Amino acid sequence: MIDTIGYIAAILTTISFLPQALKTIKTRDTSGISLLMYAVFSTGVFLWFIYGVSILDFPILIANGITFIFSIIILTYKIINVRIEVKMRKNP
Amino acid sequence: MIDTIGYIAAILTTISFLPQALKTIKTRDTSGISLLMYAVFSTGVFLWFIYGVSILDFPILIANGITFIFSIIILTYKIINVRIEVKMRKNP
Repeated sequence: MIDTIGYIAAILTTISFLPQALKTIKTRDTSGISLLMYAVFSTGVFLWFIYGVSILDFPILIANGITFIFSIIILTYKIINVRIEVKMRKNP
Repeated sequence: MIDTIGYIAAILTTISFLPQALKTIKTRDTSGISLLMYAVFSTGVFLWFIYGVSILDFPILIANGITFIFSIIILTYKIINVRIEVKMRKNP
């Protein structure tokens, strides 16, 4: 029972980034999204992945590998938008 | 060494939601944020918290307790903005 709660929790926190990634790809709107959050989060999730590989824990490895892909997509769109903003401020 | 990677990973993924929560509180801009992501993520993090309490694992319990607070703040702002949007569409 307790294990089941853990598995459901892991699945939910992993798949939750899918609708965000899809929304970001579709709308390219990242105005409300924090660059710092996704920079720190992507680093953290990548370290979780390394940790999972090191101790050969497949749930940690797989969940964080998938989350890392979603997170890096959102981060990339945010960086592209920030760069466009900076350019437009310089050449309005 | 491997444990240290795990701890750093846990700290990073937990604190990453702080800048997002602060940005959302400050700007009230949630246009790029996915409602579905924060609904699913908050549920998942809450289940992680319950899991941490069940097995009395303090790192899981504390990390997810803190993340849940940040996540629920962002989700609340998103829901408020969605409700305002729906109202404005009905009475433009």
